[in-house]
Amino acid sequence: MEKSNLRGVSCTDFVLQLSSKAPVPGGGGVAALTGALGTALGGMVCSLTAGKKKYAQYEDDIQRILQKTDELQQKLLQLIDEDAENFYPLSRAYGLPKDTEEEKKTKEETLQKCFKVAVQGPVEIMRICHEAVALEEELADKGSRLAVSDVGCGVLLLKAAMQSAWLNVVVNLNCITDQIFTEELRKELIPMMESDITICEDVYRKVLGILGE
Amino acid sequence: MEKSNLRGVSCTDFVLQLSSKAPVPGGGGVAALTGALGTALGGMVCSLTAGKKKYAQYEDDIQRILQKTDELQQKLLQLIDEDAENFYPLSRAYGLPKDTEEEKKTKEETLQKCFKVAVQGPVEIMRICHEAVALEEELADKGSRLAVSDVGCGVLLLKAAMQSAWLNVVVNLNCITDQIFTEELRKELIPMMESDITICEDVYRKVLGILGE
Repeated sequence: MEKSNLRGVSCTDFVLQLSSKAPVPGGGGVAALTGALGTALGGMVCSLTAGKKKYAQYEDDIQRILQKTDELQQKLLQLIDEDAENFYPLSRAYGLPKDTEEEKKTKEETLQKCFKVAVQGPVEIMRICHEAVALEEELADKGSRLAVSDVGCGVLLLKAAMQSAWLNVVVNLNCITDQIFTEELRKELIPMMESDITICEDVYRKVLGILGE
Repeated sequence: MEKSNLRGVSCTDFVLQLSSKAPVPGGGGVAALTGALGTALGGMVCSLTAGKKKYAQYEDDIQRILQKTDELQQKLLQLIDEDAENFYPLSRAYGLPKDTEEEKKTKEETLQKCFKVAVQGPVEIMRICHEAVALEEELADKGSRLAVSDVGCGVLLLKAAMQSAWLNVVVNLNCITDQIFTEELRKELIPMMESDITICEDVYRKVLGILGE
């Protein structure tokens, strides 16, 4: 399997490669990075709250959330590269010959398998962002007020990451003929995303309110 | 002046440093990076459309947009570090003594100058994202249909970047006593942001529609 190390390149190079016609990173990798940034903002709020007398009553929660955001941001960083690695087989399958009926059949079957692999990255990004959203919601109440704007930025990024990942799920689902497979993902992801969008928007408004806007 | 090179560190290290209690990067730097990612997605759509027969009628527009997205993403990457550099004097000013009346006065005057410097980064991020939004809007019509989901991701990220920058503008405006200064920025930025949010949401819905959602 081709290995990817996009998370190890500089922010500048990531952006430059993104803007080129290179096959990766694409929307999926960007969704993963954006999710990691949103999650890390939650981690920052924990780091700035931990050990502060004023928030001593939440210390245990803050430590738990910090451990969890560390874990989720790590997974999202890995997903930048997993999403790229999941895409390579598909980009190769597009190049398969389809001159004979047999070749056509083989190509279509291979493509179908590859679409099911390619969709996994964005699906996983959505699931992890979902966990991160719940943590930021908690931080809006328990995190240091001095860092409340960072909670606001965090939910804005997580919402964008989740919706971006969803667009990349849809692109793949549109190509998958296995209706049971596509319906199961839709049933799982759409209500989850809709509920998280509402939470993110509520937290953003709450933050604006705290800032007097 | 202290120099920053956050845009040169790896995505992984950027995320790790963000989640720590290090003073930078913060919400402003993340807004700049998110804006750069959103803009670069527009550049990618141009890269994938340029030279294609099917879109020959838009070739000149695509070349113009590509040149512009390159320039804007470059500025946004620079703003990751400018925002950090603008923050250092403020973080030093917080440490000034305030034991005597004279010291108090000097500290408050210094802080006021520093807030006006610190707000510049997020303000500039909003202005540049505003330019990028107009380009993505054009790409929703003129860009390759094969990359339409990337236009959708692009506007989602630009919206999140602009709103994140706005939160960081507000945090600074709340500390600035010069009402003429704060009112002028509010008059410029709020209508711009509201109009861009509407555009981004319209483009996102349009993209979903093209994808059959």
